[in-house]
Amino acid sequence: MNAPDTLAHLVPDIHQREVPLALVEALKSRFHERCSTALVVREQHGRDESSFQAPPPAAVVFAESTQDVADAVKLASDSSVPVIPFGVGSSLEGHLLAVQGGISIDLSRMNQVLAINADDLTVTVQAGVTRKQLNEAVKSTGLFFPIDPGADATLGGMSATRASGTNAVRYGTMRENVLALQVVTASGDIIRTGTRAKKSSAGYDLTRLMVGSEGTLGVITEVTVRLYPLPEAISAAICSFPSIEAAVRTTIQIIQLGIPIARVELIDTNTVRMVNANAKLGLIESPLLLMEFHGSPASVKEQAELVQEIATEFDGTAFEWATTPEERTRLWTARHNAYFSAIQSKPGCRAISTDTCVPISRLADCLLDSVAEANASGIPYFLVGHVGDGNFHFGYLIDPDKPEEREIAEKLNHSLVSRALRLEGTCTGEHGIGLHKMGFLLTETGTGAVDMMRSIKRALDPKNIMNPGKIFTL
Amino acid sequence: MNAPDTLAHLVPDIHQREVPLALVEALKSRFHERCSTALVVREQHGRDESSFQAPPPAAVVFAESTQDVADAVKLASDSSVPVIPFGVGSSLEGHLLAVQGGISIDLSRMNQVLAINADDLTVTVQAGVTRKQLNEAVKSTGLFFPIDPGADATLGGMSATRASGTNAVRYGTMRENVLALQVVTASGDIIRTGTRAKKSSAGYDLTRLMVGSEGTLGVITEVTVRLYPLPEAISAAICSFPSIEAAVRTTIQIIQLGIPIARVELIDTNTVRMVNANAKLGLIESPLLLMEFHGSPASVKEQAELVQEIATEFDGTAFEWATTPEERTRLWTARHNAYFSAIQSKPGCRAISTDTCVPISRLADCLLDSVAEANASGIPYFLVGHVGDGNFHFGYLIDPDKPEEREIAEKLNHSLVSRALRLEGTCTGEHGIGLHKMGFLLTETGTGAVDMMRSIKRALDPKNIMNPGKIFTL
Repeated sequence: MNAPDTLAHLVPDIHQREVPLALVEALKSRFHERCSTALVVREQHGRDESSFQAPPPAAVVFAESTQDVADAVKLASDSSVPVIPFGVGSSLEGHLLAVQGGISIDLSRMNQVLAINADDLTVTVQAGVTRKQLNEAVKSTGLFFPIDPGADATLGGMSATRASGTNAVRYGTMRENVLALQVVTASGDIIRTGTRAKKSSAGYDLTRLMVGSEGTLGVITEVTVRLYPLPEAISAAICSFPSIEAAVRTTIQIIQLGIPIARVELIDTNTVRMVNANAKLGLIESPLLLMEFHGSPASVKEQAELVQEIATEFDGTAFEWATTPEERTRLWTARHNAYFSAIQSKPGCRAISTDTCVPISRLADCLLDSVAEANASGIPYFLVGHVGDGNFHFGYLIDPDKPEEREIAEKLNHSLVSRALRLEGTCTGEHGIGLHKMGFLLTETGTGAVDMMRSIKRALDPKNIMNPGKIFTL
Repeated sequence: MNAPDTLAHLVPDIHQREVPLALVEALKSRFHERCSTALVVREQHGRDESSFQAPPPAAVVFAESTQDVADAVKLASDSSVPVIPFGVGSSLEGHLLAVQGGISIDLSRMNQVLAINADDLTVTVQAGVTRKQLNEAVKSTGLFFPIDPGADATLGGMSATRASGTNAVRYGTMRENVLALQVVTASGDIIRTGTRAKKSSAGYDLTRLMVGSEGTLGVITEVTVRLYPLPEAISAAICSFPSIEAAVRTTIQIIQLGIPIARVELIDTNTVRMVNANAKLGLIESPLLLMEFHGSPASVKEQAELVQEIATEFDGTAFEWATTPEERTRLWTARHNAYFSAIQSKPGCRAISTDTCVPISRLADCLLDSVAEANASGIPYFLVGHVGDGNFHFGYLIDPDKPEEREIAEKLNHSLVSRALRLEGTCTGEHGIGLHKMGFLLTETGTGAVDMMRSIKRALDPKNIMNPGKIFTL
């Protein structure tokens, strides 16, 4: 089988390794009906939310325990066959594609909340638990888990891609919030990294080495994360601006003044139009900021007043406040519907998503030039951003049957990433490298650092079976 | 040369590797008077604040640039000779001891502040810059660097040991605050990890792999860290309690309620007595909490009122407040003088320091039993702690000439660490493993995880020349 041209173009060393029939038989004998070779199941596990395609994995194992994962990895390792962990399939960067063949290990049935330690503000879950399920499980404790990447991803997947999202400006990313992991290594051994202590200097930080390793160093099977007390008061606000620049300058000042804002999201005029068309929101069709404040009633009031003052300086108008959960949900509709409204604005399209992140003072420079380029290209796009972190996403809406549109989108992305790197930023704030950004990673971090990553990969996965072909070529 | 018995007992594979005369000559030829073989210089670089002793390094190179470090490492690598990075020598765990011989690279002359990016709340410094120097350099920007491990350590050393200290309860540790590093690898190459972007999903987290690696994977030569706006208001408080348990229970409740306290430090009655004797403070001789609140005037007031309410519930008395810098400094005198007052209370003694850290709900269990054991042992001790993080330090005051005292102290430490591990904590919150806790690391994290660390070490430092003999045996 050959991969489509677009993928071959992006992944220079794509090749399908042989999966021996004996391995599939051994998996079936160990897992019975929990090992599937049905095409529809394999195809479902061989794609994600990216626009890439590859042949599906040879089999899918539905793990129900860490021992299941360890046994599947051991069998695969015996035959030097790749294994690809699968949560809910919400990767945007082709992480789940079996570009070198192999088997998919579906962890979605490992969905037990193992230990809620409310007194310590920690919770330990199996890797297949999703963030919404987790928040439902801890609701009665008065605590919550803030990381919200949009998709209802699994904690395992969020750990593997170092995910973040709207609340990261205040609560940090998975990097800051994972305390400990259980991991199945490339040899099928089970190890633990970290403890439930809030801090530690005990040896190499294997937890943070695994967080963001995109399945290439091991399969994450359990995750311990920090929880936070539900804020006594939450207040949301929406504010329109005459220009993207005004919205961005407002954000920069909020951050530079150290206001502990919990969310600050940019939505550009394009996206407001798409959301208005789709969800009949009747929003003013200009760039807007969606914000949220967490704290005591007094502190929330103080933060909100300060922010309104700053926004007014930059000609922010149409401030609207929401304090009840229902009103807040209504305000956030625009943000939550952005992606689907955009996709529906061009039937049959796929979104090519960018993910640059720059130091906050460089945000205006990075964004404004990229908006000008995107407008000049003629490709429709939406633009949303976790601007408080200097992170934003263009979604270029391309017709997958028109290679020339993909080419334009890739050029726009390339130009945007080059700009972000010049401004001392990164090609990916939260989506990961996957298949798409291997070249950018080299430019960003240099051959020496990528060689160090390769050395670690070779040392921990000598047969190169853990999600091979992602992050870098070996 | 043989190491003293105490060290041989702790470090099973201690052996001195040969340092060829040709290497020393090559170093002298490259570095001239900046390469010293004077005994006094070597001895000064062959010890730290730990109670261990080993033969000094064969030579000391005073680096003035990253290229100096790279050249020294390359020369050492050619002869397979160990290199040990040296900042100010404030390690508590024997990190600086040349247990396998080799050369010391002193980075204290690499003390340039390279870039203050106040608009981005970041600063980049050479590794030899100390935290006080850094705070002096950024003072005029209205920003500060909060990590305060007590000693005026270098940023390189603080990174290498994943240091934290009194402000970590609010601002996190070096793990959360280092954004990017420049590192000289074991082959003498210069790499960069990370960017100035606040978050990133770009490949393996080499930054956090290096943070806490104790010089065993590379020499850190530049550090980019986060800064924070100086709080609009700062308020400090001191409060006495009838028992350690009451002070600890107060702390647990403060944390569980999510009050964003900036510092909460425990000082036990012993230590108060020692400080009173030494600094004539006239404090009530009972356990006390020292606290600090950062924020807007309204938020600081709110936090302080809440905390006073909680403390009163646990019979806290003699609340004293300080808002001016002078008054705050006076209140903190007790904490800052604790170590030296303790040392002076028993002339000629050395302190054997513990560093366990447990989940906050286990703090009382961990602390109270250990206090009882320490009291029963008859060894004098002081006890201070960053209790908001579940981290505390006993300092057992031993006469270095009485092996039986060291033995009792080690037994107390052993019992304390075992207890902390049973309570899902760590043997070291902030000092590192060094020479002293290799056995504890194995117990804490398991053979599988330590084997993974060893694999990484072998891959990145195949000649085992980077600060060998620390963290684990190979």
